[in-house]
Amino acid sequence: MAYKELDTKSVVEYLKTRPALAEVLPVNDEYEASEIGDGNLNMVFIIQSKTVPERTVIVKQALPYLRVVGESWPLTRDRIIYETEALKIYNEIAPEFSPIVYDNDYDMSVAVMENLNQHEIMRKPLVSRERFPKFAEHISSFLANVLFKTSDLYLSSKDKKALQEKFMNPELRKLQEDFVYTNPFMEAEENNWNPLIDDLAKDVRSDGKLKQEINKLKIDYVLKAQALLHADLHTGSIMLNKEETKVIDPEFAFVGPMAYDIAAVIQNLILNYASHFAHTKDTAQRESYQDYLLETIQDIWNGFAFKFDQLWQAENQGDLSPNSYWDFEGGEEAFAEFRKDYLQNVLQDVAGIGGTKMLRRMFGIVTVWDISSIEDEHERAKVERFIVNLGRRWIMERKSISSIEQLIAMTKEEAAKLEF
Amino acid sequence: MAYKELDTKSVVEYLKTRPALAEVLPVNDEYEASEIGDGNLNMVFIIQSKTVPERTVIVKQALPYLRVVGESWPLTRDRIIYETEALKIYNEIAPEFSPIVYDNDYDMSVAVMENLNQHEIMRKPLVSRERFPKFAEHISSFLANVLFKTSDLYLSSKDKKALQEKFMNPELRKLQEDFVYTNPFMEAEENNWNPLIDDLAKDVRSDGKLKQEINKLKIDYVLKAQALLHADLHTGSIMLNKEETKVIDPEFAFVGPMAYDIAAVIQNLILNYASHFAHTKDTAQRESYQDYLLETIQDIWNGFAFKFDQLWQAENQGDLSPNSYWDFEGGEEAFAEFRKDYLQNVLQDVAGIGGTKMLRRMFGIVTVWDISSIEDEHERAKVERFIVNLGRRWIMERKSISSIEQLIAMTKEEAAKLEF
Repeated sequence: MAYKELDTKSVVEYLKTRPALAEVLPVNDEYEASEIGDGNLNMVFIIQSKTVPERTVIVKQALPYLRVVGESWPLTRDRIIYETEALKIYNEIAPEFSPIVYDNDYDMSVAVMENLNQHEIMRKPLVSRERFPKFAEHISSFLANVLFKTSDLYLSSKDKKALQEKFMNPELRKLQEDFVYTNPFMEAEENNWNPLIDDLAKDVRSDGKLKQEINKLKIDYVLKAQALLHADLHTGSIMLNKEETKVIDPEFAFVGPMAYDIAAVIQNLILNYASHFAHTKDTAQRESYQDYLLETIQDIWNGFAFKFDQLWQAENQGDLSPNSYWDFEGGEEAFAEFRKDYLQNVLQDVAGIGGTKMLRRMFGIVTVWDISSIEDEHERAKVERFIVNLGRRWIMERKSISSIEQLIAMTKEEAAKLEF
Repeated sequence: MAYKELDTKSVVEYLKTRPALAEVLPVNDEYEASEIGDGNLNMVFIIQSKTVPERTVIVKQALPYLRVVGESWPLTRDRIIYETEALKIYNEIAPEFSPIVYDNDYDMSVAVMENLNQHEIMRKPLVSRERFPKFAEHISSFLANVLFKTSDLYLSSKDKKALQEKFMNPELRKLQEDFVYTNPFMEAEENNWNPLIDDLAKDVRSDGKLKQEINKLKIDYVLKAQALLHADLHTGSIMLNKEETKVIDPEFAFVGPMAYDIAAVIQNLILNYASHFAHTKDTAQRESYQDYLLETIQDIWNGFAFKFDQLWQAENQGDLSPNSYWDFEGGEEAFAEFRKDYLQNVLQDVAGIGGTKMLRRMFGIVTVWDISSIEDEHERAKVERFIVNLGRRWIMERKSISSIEQLIAMTKEEAAKLEF
């Protein structure tokens, strides 16, 4: 079927023509559609049966232009393919942590998926100090499974290259190359920061050593094709409740450095941690919640590293480092050391990428609600200074990092300098 | 035209049907074809006019199976596409250093190219101590231009990814992943070494630290997609005379670590250097030629690094590290330091990859004629021990390398221990 923009009426008719949906949305039922989301890049519809409320799905359709600007700003509709294909891989590798994809129709740029109506986006509840006791366990399992099973450690050499070819995603990668690693650190008209940290913006932009390190991290982003990344795994791409965690919206998916996804999660928790200096005036409440966040970070990394290593030992079936290569007197220890070193490198990448992301959120085009919702701009500036100082340290000191506890200690050291 | 194996008769008829060849091989002339090469993977024909000897081309046709084994060993014919497309890029970027591609017909797995009948393959003349005074200048220009202009430093983000996608080359890369980085260092039936260095083979195979480093280098080979590589640039892939140098046979081409090609050239010169301990009994003759080889190595690296940096400064038009990013007080120095660091990393990769290739030539499936042509197996063993010791040092000490002179000094140190 040729591409045609759907609306709340035509979407219901359209879904009835899709054989793959016969079970989820029986054709003899009646359905209602409502549009949600900002509808800027994608149309997003909730479809629900008028008689059986459990019969519900989300329909996402990519638009061929940026709606807020109009047809003059064309966009590739390929992003729905990347998103859907990544979700289908998650459905395979980590089914409990991703919405089910029921159907896709790339001529129409449409994907039909599970309606997560029992879950909420993670960002706002973190600002209101909500706790998700299973989150660290869940997200570390998601990360370990997806990153391991899409890497050369698990996939054959050929399958890995096929995966890489499938997720070239040049347009969205270019956006991140520019807007995460380059433009926030130079003059660029879209940059946007609190005028009260103007001195810091100038300082960062003219810090030659820092910019060398950020450019090295960009090289990793561009070249280090370790595993299939979500590549935009901030707390706005996570839907959850006390019992379940679901990763959504992987339209930036490509094969890149593993640490990128881990850093995105951890860095968003750090931003949230920082925001509570302003958001939470009650010291006991604040400290308790901040401790919870740092423990969560610790559990995420340590959980990830443990599970990843377990998977590697149990399912080392890729061509990169076969068991037979380590089959010699002392080989077991050598292999263990190799794995440890590998994971330490991932952690150092987490520090570098996490630090870069902290900085870009302060100076670049994209702000983050945890911080931008701090109304007093002086308070916000103090929080932002903390984030910038910490980000710089994570970048510059990353090569000396061998445990997540060191990154947490650095965070507490910088926090101790704050006066609120 | 559907695939059909050509022979010396049908190839002439076939070429007359190709419009692209009308100028090189006018149809009203008469031609003779002869088959050259081992014809194991490819049929290779020389076509020459009976009346005008300058009317001559090489025709290469990929076979769909390994001829020595027969049709039971199928091979992808895609390699002719990789080879021809890489040569066409060389024709564009470094025309003086590559044979002209006149025509290609991928349905027939055929490429038609310049007959380099004034040039010889480099390997054997190096064993008979021939000198090529322009070689270092030529090959360093070739390497600097091709590696720079197919990297993210010159190409846009999108063009680089398109290049990467075009040269996925999964089958031939898998061969090198196995036969360069893995199998020579473990038990594998195809391994082949001089029984007199059996102790060394065992020692290397059970050296946990060394194998960790080689596995890290393999990760680079697999992931570090810096630039378009020839990926098999030994002295058998170079045709030359005193005045000209031509790079041929890039069927392994893919986007990988720049150092791989540089290391291949340098390492082959080191193997040749080593071979003269046995081949050249006259000490003065030997020393003089070995000095020439080490100077050539020095000139290749220093020439490459200088030209690469000049190109980077003059044509920094890629998205990786734009000039505007370095536009600040002190930015010029910071950018210079960044480039220096980048090239130092390439040199360290050269040491690691060069060392690995030295070892694999001693223990793996593929020997090298410079060494295998040493008839006395005791002498050969001495030379091989030197190569293995040196290879290990290049790998293990690579992180301390900041100049080619250090690698040359290491080579001389190991050579001084040899008794001939």
